[in-house]
Amino acid sequence: MKEIQGGVTAAKGFEAASAAAEIKYKDRTDMAMIYSQVPCRAAGTFTTNVVKAAPVKWDQNVVKNSEYVQAVVVNSGIANACTGTEGYDYCKTTAEKAGEVLHIPAEAVLVGSTGVIGMQLPIERICVGIDKLAAVKSDTIAAGTDAAKAIMTTDTCKKELAVTVEISGKTVTIGGMAKGSGMIHPNMCTMLSFVTTDAVISKAALQKALSEDVKDTYNMISVDGDTSTNDTVLVLANGMAENEEIVEGTEDYARFAEALHAVNVGLAKMIAGDGEGATALFEVNVVGAETKEQAVLLSKSVVCSNLTKTAIAGHDANWGRILCAMGYSGAQFDPEKVDLYLESAAGKLKIVENGRAASYSEEKATEILSQPVVIATADMKMGDAKATAWGCDLTHGYIDINADYRS
Amino acid sequence: MKEIQGGVTAAKGFEAASAAAEIKYKDRTDMAMIYSQVPCRAAGTFTTNVVKAAPVKWDQNVVKNSEYVQAVVVNSGIANACTGTEGYDYCKTTAEKAGEVLHIPAEAVLVGSTGVIGMQLPIERICVGIDKLAAVKSDTIAAGTDAAKAIMTTDTCKKELAVTVEISGKTVTIGGMAKGSGMIHPNMCTMLSFVTTDAVISKAALQKALSEDVKDTYNMISVDGDTSTNDTVLVLANGMAENEEIVEGTEDYARFAEALHAVNVGLAKMIAGDGEGATALFEVNVVGAETKEQAVLLSKSVVCSNLTKTAIAGHDANWGRILCAMGYSGAQFDPEKVDLYLESAAGKLKIVENGRAASYSEEKATEILSQPVVIATADMKMGDAKATAWGCDLTHGYIDINADYRS
Repeated sequence: MKEIQGGVTAAKGFEAASAAAEIKYKDRTDMAMIYSQVPCRAAGTFTTNVVKAAPVKWDQNVVKNSEYVQAVVVNSGIANACTGTEGYDYCKTTAEKAGEVLHIPAEAVLVGSTGVIGMQLPIERICVGIDKLAAVKSDTIAAGTDAAKAIMTTDTCKKELAVTVEISGKTVTIGGMAKGSGMIHPNMCTMLSFVTTDAVISKAALQKALSEDVKDTYNMISVDGDTSTNDTVLVLANGMAENEEIVEGTEDYARFAEALHAVNVGLAKMIAGDGEGATALFEVNVVGAETKEQAVLLSKSVVCSNLTKTAIAGHDANWGRILCAMGYSGAQFDPEKVDLYLESAAGKLKIVENGRAASYSEEKATEILSQPVVIATADMKMGDAKATAWGCDLTHGYIDINADYRS
Repeated sequence: MKEIQGGVTAAKGFEAASAAAEIKYKDRTDMAMIYSQVPCRAAGTFTTNVVKAAPVKWDQNVVKNSEYVQAVVVNSGIANACTGTEGYDYCKTTAEKAGEVLHIPAEAVLVGSTGVIGMQLPIERICVGIDKLAAVKSDTIAAGTDAAKAIMTTDTCKKELAVTVEISGKTVTIGGMAKGSGMIHPNMCTMLSFVTTDAVISKAALQKALSEDVKDTYNMISVDGDTSTNDTVLVLANGMAENEEIVEGTEDYARFAEALHAVNVGLAKMIAGDGEGATALFEVNVVGAETKEQAVLLSKSVVCSNLTKTAIAGHDANWGRILCAMGYSGAQFDPEKVDLYLESAAGKLKIVENGRAASYSEEKATEILSQPVVIATADMKMGDAKATAWGCDLTHGYIDINADYRS
């Protein structure tokens, strides 16, 4: 497996487009399209929020019932959530319009929306946008990158990644783009991730590979603990790599799953690191836990703790907040066994030994915590299970963005 | 029942004291004592955090095993959490010193600590502080108020409250003081609450009345979702009101429980309203839920949502965030039935009707949200159950306080 340049247009036969449709923003692109030259198998995972946005409902239906999909239409600015039957009808209109322009069935069109909740989409501008998108779609790397930019809301940078892997003598490419910065606590969030691959793979194997991987990737990130109404991860596989069909339980499946994981975990970390107002990506490793479930609870509790997140923002090795967050996670452990390490490009320090302060230099700790990627590792010394979660620091920037987002 | 002036010294026979002991702060009081002229029955509820501070462990043991208690010694500045056996030994030394000075058994002394995690107490200064406290304790209202001030950390105001209630022809008084501003998500936090009463009441009835009431009071508030290592609520009853003994299941018990609730809910709301950096108390009522459990999940999810809290800070009626938070609460409901109201001293507005935006004035909504107490009421239209939770807005002040708390 190796990382290559690009995102959703990296895999063979995939095209992308972006357009400025004035959905809510002015002077920027706010619609994107992904199109495959041939029909694709699709897999998806979606928010578990009881309040599901209209495009989530549309896509759940398409992924379940359509044998093939061939395009995805996405807008930023308005989430099309809490919009009733009118909102759902707009998804249908969007798919019908795209189907008409692209000469494919409406049932082969997935849709995605992200932005403010409760507003209706300006459907006429959406339709004009689809005409523009269809006219400019292209299989260039730049087209993929521009699409990744068009789906941003409070994101400060585009998020895309691609890898190749050899499967049955053929080079299979998997590429993806994602957006997400606030309302990020995916439990399959306003997280959208679109992954494309030219692999030949059965629909069942594709869904399984995705469903298993989101648990260790998107579902292990949190910016603010708010699980969105719109979280969507879609994978489209168009088969143009011409490998032997990948089915579950094979070595090829394992190789594909590993490559898919590389794309998913990369995109997930980009989302966490670009959390609203964030100045640092905060990675929390829990090792030596009794069970995987406990390791997950412990690591997620730490990345979600506002007090820990503000301590990271302040470059303050206030480790008591980390132990406190583990303590209320719901996992059982012996606090007096815990060792805790802080690590970054500036070095690594043991901060806590057996639940109590180790002797360390506060100055060095502050230096470590001043880097753009900060890693905390807690050794529970209870067993062999481990998990990793990703979050970010909590800063004045988050307050600025969210105390006045709608205006 | 009526509210009267005062706090922990309002009930007959209770004295209080405060002293500056330089535990961590300079130029302010940082130790407090509560003392009863006669032995008291005691009840307590404590943090459910796996990482429990040493004073929590000490008090759990005292409440369970000592027939009577007679004093409480509290320090602010250092939490005595994650301090190992040394920390626990300091609790014992504190109780022994207080016992010696007050001429009562060490087992009749409760202790409380709040502040930074992981530092050891300066036990010599604690002992000097106890001498000072014992020398100045007094049953005046002012002594109680000064004690309430001495236990503050990032609190911006002292929190105390007292009520009287007639029970079997006698006037029973219940008064309390509390502190708490950050790391507040009690699940019996760095929340400490001390309630005193002169009621004659059985130990079992006292514990039952407290345990049942914390569910609807302290456990329904959240500042930052971080459940502390130190949360403690203690009630001391010294019997000096000379009423007939209150036992469970009687009308007297109901009257006492109602008065205790008034003190607990009042103190809990003061804590939520004085959350770190807060400019508003945010009350969330959920009505029409299917079950009490669901109403609790829904209301707590909203007060805990960072996005909702920042919207309140911005005086922005971004109701989609409230529906979103209810959606990921874990409770099941029909989003398309929900009505949502916003209310304050400036008026009341229906914001959402059947899950969609109602027609309302954004200007009026902003006016409502600009008040120091903001109330959101969600009608789920599923049943008759209800719950109320209290939180606060999330502001730049919270970041200022917590990105640099230890320094």
